[in-house]
Amino acid sequence: MAPRDPKEDGFGVGGGGGAADPEADIEAPLLVSSGSSFLLDPALEDGGGDEEQRRRRRRFLHGSHTHSNTTSQVALVGADVCPIESLDYELIENDVFKQDWRAQGRGHILRYVALKWALCFLVGALSAAAGFVANLGVENVAGAKFVVTSNLMLDGRHGSAFAVFLASNFALTMLAAVMTVYVAPAAAGSGIPEVKAYLNGVDAPNIFSLKTLIVKVVGCIAAVSSSLHVGKAGPLVHTGACIASILGQGGSRKYHMTCRWLRYFKNDRDRRDLVTCGSAAGIAAAFRAPVGGVLFALETVSSWWRSALLWRAFFTTAMVAVVLRALIDFCQSGKCGLFGKGGLIMFDVTADYVTYHLIDLPPVITLGVFGGILGSLYNFFLDKVLRLYNLINEKGKTYKLLLAATVTVCTSCCLFGLPWIAACKPCPTDTGEACPSIGRSGNFKKFQCAMDEYNDLASLFFNTNDDTIRNLYSAGTDDEFHISSILVFFVASYFLGIFSYGLALPSGLFVPVILTGAAYGRLVGMLIGSQSTLDHGLFAVLGSAALLGGSMRMTVSVCVIILELTNNLRMLPLVMLVLLISKVVADAFNANVYDLLVRLKGFPHLEGYAEPYMRQLTVSDVVTGPLQTFNGIEKVGHIVHVLKTTGHNGFPVVDEPPFSDTPTLYGLILRDHLLVLLRKKDFIRSCTASTRNASNHFSHAEFAKRGSGKHDRIEDIELCPEELEMFVDLHPFTNTSPYTVLETMSLAKALILFREVGLRHLLVLPKSSKRAPVVGILTRHDFMPEHILGLHPFLFKSRWKKVRLGKVKVTNIF
Amino acid sequence: MAPRDPKEDGFGVGGGGGAADPEADIEAPLLVSSGSSFLLDPALEDGGGDEEQRRRRRRFLHGSHTHSNTTSQVALVGADVCPIESLDYELIENDVFKQDWRAQGRGHILRYVALKWALCFLVGALSAAAGFVANLGVENVAGAKFVVTSNLMLDGRHGSAFAVFLASNFALTMLAAVMTVYVAPAAAGSGIPEVKAYLNGVDAPNIFSLKTLIVKVVGCIAAVSSSLHVGKAGPLVHTGACIASILGQGGSRKYHMTCRWLRYFKNDRDRRDLVTCGSAAGIAAAFRAPVGGVLFALETVSSWWRSALLWRAFFTTAMVAVVLRALIDFCQSGKCGLFGKGGLIMFDVTADYVTYHLIDLPPVITLGVFGGILGSLYNFFLDKVLRLYNLINEKGKTYKLLLAATVTVCTSCCLFGLPWIAACKPCPTDTGEACPSIGRSGNFKKFQCAMDEYNDLASLFFNTNDDTIRNLYSAGTDDEFHISSILVFFVASYFLGIFSYGLALPSGLFVPVILTGAAYGRLVGMLIGSQSTLDHGLFAVLGSAALLGGSMRMTVSVCVIILELTNNLRMLPLVMLVLLISKVVADAFNANVYDLLVRLKGFPHLEGYAEPYMRQLTVSDVVTGPLQTFNGIEKVGHIVHVLKTTGHNGFPVVDEPPFSDTPTLYGLILRDHLLVLLRKKDFIRSCTASTRNASNHFSHAEFAKRGSGKHDRIEDIELCPEELEMFVDLHPFTNTSPYTVLETMSLAKALILFREVGLRHLLVLPKSSKRAPVVGILTRHDFMPEHILGLHPFLFKSRWKKVRLGKVKVTNIF
Repeated sequence: MAPRDPKEDGFGVGGGGGAADPEADIEAPLLVSSGSSFLLDPALEDGGGDEEQRRRRRRFLHGSHTHSNTTSQVALVGADVCPIESLDYELIENDVFKQDWRAQGRGHILRYVALKWALCFLVGALSAAAGFVANLGVENVAGAKFVVTSNLMLDGRHGSAFAVFLASNFALTMLAAVMTVYVAPAAAGSGIPEVKAYLNGVDAPNIFSLKTLIVKVVGCIAAVSSSLHVGKAGPLVHTGACIASILGQGGSRKYHMTCRWLRYFKNDRDRRDLVTCGSAAGIAAAFRAPVGGVLFALETVSSWWRSALLWRAFFTTAMVAVVLRALIDFCQSGKCGLFGKGGLIMFDVTADYVTYHLIDLPPVITLGVFGGILGSLYNFFLDKVLRLYNLINEKGKTYKLLLAATVTVCTSCCLFGLPWIAACKPCPTDTGEACPSIGRSGNFKKFQCAMDEYNDLASLFFNTNDDTIRNLYSAGTDDEFHISSILVFFVASYFLGIFSYGLALPSGLFVPVILTGAAYGRLVGMLIGSQSTLDHGLFAVLGSAALLGGSMRMTVSVCVIILELTNNLRMLPLVMLVLLISKVVADAFNANVYDLLVRLKGFPHLEGYAEPYMRQLTVSDVVTGPLQTFNGIEKVGHIVHVLKTTGHNGFPVVDEPPFSDTPTLYGLILRDHLLVLLRKKDFIRSCTASTRNASNHFSHAEFAKRGSGKHDRIEDIELCPEELEMFVDLHPFTNTSPYTVLETMSLAKALILFREVGLRHLLVLPKSSKRAPVVGILTRHDFMPEHILGLHPFLFKSRWKKVRLGKVKVTNIF
Repeated sequence: MAPRDPKEDGFGVGGGGGAADPEADIEAPLLVSSGSSFLLDPALEDGGGDEEQRRRRRRFLHGSHTHSNTTSQVALVGADVCPIESLDYELIENDVFKQDWRAQGRGHILRYVALKWALCFLVGALSAAAGFVANLGVENVAGAKFVVTSNLMLDGRHGSAFAVFLASNFALTMLAAVMTVYVAPAAAGSGIPEVKAYLNGVDAPNIFSLKTLIVKVVGCIAAVSSSLHVGKAGPLVHTGACIASILGQGGSRKYHMTCRWLRYFKNDRDRRDLVTCGSAAGIAAAFRAPVGGVLFALETVSSWWRSALLWRAFFTTAMVAVVLRALIDFCQSGKCGLFGKGGLIMFDVTADYVTYHLIDLPPVITLGVFGGILGSLYNFFLDKVLRLYNLINEKGKTYKLLLAATVTVCTSCCLFGLPWIAACKPCPTDTGEACPSIGRSGNFKKFQCAMDEYNDLASLFFNTNDDTIRNLYSAGTDDEFHISSILVFFVASYFLGIFSYGLALPSGLFVPVILTGAAYGRLVGMLIGSQSTLDHGLFAVLGSAALLGGSMRMTVSVCVIILELTNNLRMLPLVMLVLLISKVVADAFNANVYDLLVRLKGFPHLEGYAEPYMRQLTVSDVVTGPLQTFNGIEKVGHIVHVLKTTGHNGFPVVDEPPFSDTPTLYGLILRDHLLVLLRKKDFIRSCTASTRNASNHFSHAEFAKRGSGKHDRIEDIELCPEELEMFVDLHPFTNTSPYTVLETMSLAKALILFREVGLRHLLVLPKSSKRAPVVGILTRHDFMPEHILGLHPFLFKSRWKKVRLGKVKVTNIF
């Protein structure tokens, strides 16, 4: 499609222009904004938009998901469909910015740097506190539940025990679900896909609000305590990111709590850095793994990374480690109730435990291969179940609660019912641990057995996830579990994890996968038997690595996290080997679980590499829709009209004669900045008088980016007819250094520029000087494969498409 | 300075055009090439250029270094001044490339991916082998020397012992120096600055040649064995990078050993990735620290990083760990001579050794603060000494050898002389180790003492560096060393390290700093005495971290390397704390040692952030010199003339009427590609006949990038007068997707684009359509602070300059 002359369309809005495919016309109001980024569609916000929103939500959830990714401006955030928007990582270099910037002395810069570090410190300390509170809560709530249940079982009152177990699990699940559904739907799920999307440049309202933060922490405690197979790690990453974002926002204007000092952080770039540190702090707090946290943020979550950020993220996680250690030390004096060993899986592996030889290689390789297969199957089932759950959840809040209730009841029945099929085992005599263990945790649960016996399956089911993992990892326990018990536990844990994730409550994927992997590893160890000299505890650790590698596809970070969990570096080669094998095997089948979730949720995630077919196209092939430009000195009425009728977020400013000899591109102005101008009403009477000192009336702070999800709206600004006839000088507010590409640039190289520099708008310039100075704008939308393949269906048939759709996503490996 | 119309200058070359400052005229022949990248200046290469080269070298070494960085196209590579050149990371999307690319099926892609992994495997395995050979060599050579010396001392023949010690050290040093000076000058030094510059996009001939590789390994063994205070880590990084680069080159055309399969790697991007993996493998092999190696490459060496690369680098270092372990296992059977404990500092710290409490914080903080000060002082002295050494080395090969001889004699005298001032200590009775230890290693050296005594200073001096570090790190040895001995050793080690680095032989900085730091830590531990409960061995570990943090300024990688060295993760919070403190303190004084070396060597290293004053300038302010463009169909004679008279490496191709309505930018063509065209002589008779199928006569492989430092030269191509009158169609060979910026773009944002995308040429487009379609080219050169401040001296006086020159380089911290 040839790029259009911007003048050709005049005020032309709506209608989707000349988009070629028929579907584009159906989705016209959405496609119009191809020259804009993902924005709040006005129709979504005014009162009458309710029906439209419902319709779109339905289309999003039912329709071809892959297609709605790009044409819709909505995504599934937590448990609700929300409008999404692109972030501005580019420095808006207009006169106002430059003036403010020149006015900043050395003191400002030092204060900025000091604040940055202070914020990182706070993020670290608060994330550690949040992680500690989550653990403390889980250990005490779940602990109390297990103690009461165990005592009833001890008295032989099995029915009452089940009733207590079921009721408490039900109540806890419902608490989490009700809070999530009614207070903060964005808190549902792990939150890692949302954080990943945010760090890729996609914002959604409320993902980092205070409400979300509170619901996430409290809901996470309730959900994990309710014996659902969900983890704390994902929610803690989201919590860390929330804390970072809220701290960076510099208080709330609504509650008149603003901090002038924090004004430096009122932009998307600094917030991105803080949120990256926050997500690193989350993993560090979840696993007491500071280095692993940094690597996790680097490898999985973030899209942009600098050396300076590495250092700051490291500082943040170091603070997490220090604060966490202090809090745990405090608890060791017994002041924290049932928080005994602590819910943080920290497990010291003694050196003699880790001895391995060459003959152990085949079992370890086998473990990796099947771990990869099981991991990719995990992703496959999770995808199917989530699609089903989305359809149920979408029917309304009651359905969400009903779904959660159903799953928790089933889970409780499983956990209480399955141990009955296990045979009682006599207590070993040579163990230092009490057998059977009467308290909350321990390897030997009595359950229905006699006094000197224990039920090995109950020992796995009737503990918190952290304790079970610790039990499975422990050395010298090869005979403690019967193979059938481990098999039952593995299968139950595998599917419970899959069925528990999509509920409308905070739930992580990490811990269930580690747990299932530990069972899987023990199982393999038992099956291999005397063929290997490895301890079954070590097999459990390697099994966790294999399943994590197969499902999450992280390598370095998972490896370091496991090493930090077990505090032994000797296992490094084995863990690396297992991870590499399982990742390679699993990559042959499907994408990693976070990419899958991001796609399922409909976030327009921008990959860092170009798809092969992009080399076949130039940028002019994907630029669509009418381009809307403004004059350097523009009529207020025109601006208002354009803002009301389009959804574009950036407009090229062109100086036309008589202000210049020929039409000349002056720069790019943002919708947000235009709204500030209109609100301030600093207009001029005549089109000819260029009053460039207009910037003196504005301070840079007025243009500062507001908190996540907060926006001015053109509908809220009231202008009288007289004002609409006046003019406004856009020059001082226009970004004079927009990034540009020629229309003959290949799409692949434009994508690299767009992604590497972190852009929101990319101007397309004409090749020939005879035409208008700018012929289009590229946004995130225009690089989405679905958009491109929609415009150029012939690519579907070409083999490039085939390569892309093939099982091995080879471009990813490049 | 206003950008010039390219047409204005016609064939205009030379004379430095309108460069404003007087110095530009003096350096005219160099400044001409501002529109090009760092290239082989023709004058440097022809026979008569000898005098010119000497002159330039002299200017480089004597003159203001900061200025010659940018205006000269030479840098100090190893021990010699060499021409340097930019690398092409951009994909050259011309017709030939596209044709080749479309012809590649799925098989090609899979083969490419498989090869990539196979190469990584080979790089890992060979780096591990190189590391092992280096250690084996050092342990045996140095071991034999120490055994002979010890035995002579045992017999009381102190004079002979000294003679043997001195002579062997002298011989080993001379071996290393002669090899380096006469065979491969690029092998001198650690090589990390060269690798860092290469990964930033600056190439120099011979840094990765086979000769360099061999000299590096052999020279490193000799130099380290000669008791010079130099390390193996830096040379191993260079070795790993060499191996990667040589493997990626796909054999040698000269020896008719080319591998067709490896043709995919004949470009700078894939080589960069391989070299990154190679440098990670180097550190992994030096310290047996696979994760630390990856982080080192990420944090310190590389300039571009992708998630996919993280995975591949991790795979490479995993291979290093596996191969190294296998080789060491093989040696434990005693087949490797004196390679007993192995020269790889792997030191298991037992758990009880690492107990710390709140009262240990003040000593640790003190350690960090003084470590930072000592580290920055280390850098300061190193800088001064290197400048002095450069002046001496530059006088000729004999001077280089003399300098090395002087330093090794002084070192030997120090090492042999200083222990005499230490008092003999009686052997402890409760140690499991033999005292005095007669063999090569051990904590108790007899030296001149009686049979049941030992000399603690000799125990430190008369071991290999690795053994000394192990001794200093060992726990429960608080009383083994007298404080005066540790003090003497610390001071001697501090200055010996500084004076040993700049010699013309392979020498690393890492190990001397670790060693000095260990002594420093012990010293602090002794001074603090009973104020702290920490073991002195732990103090030594923390001291190493403090000095590394103060000198190298790495955080995450040093932290992980130290944890991997000591195999205990409990120290993590302490090590982190010390590193952060020492880095912050040292950053207040000067830059890190690698940045310092890169600058001293004159590499035009492109930083990832914009200096404040760059926001004040637009790209048109720094574009200098005449722009040379070609027509789409150009006369051969003109091309030859331009190539001979300019040093530019990229030329915009502009379609002029009658081939287009108005002058239109078609793309950018590289000098290398023009040379291929001229060599093939596929010319056309008339200017009008556009024979676009010319690309059929060429295969993509002909345009493949040749090995590092290998170039076609225009002088080697002979064309008859008739051919000079013919034409050549440049269209199929022109990159049609060059990156562009408008002339009004701020320099800071252009730098971000240039650096993030990894460009060599950035075209500057006019703002107004009335002018020529391209008004200039930006290269690496144009972003160098010295060039910009040379063009705009007023910035020197502005406070932006002050901020930049201030002690705290605040922009770095952002």
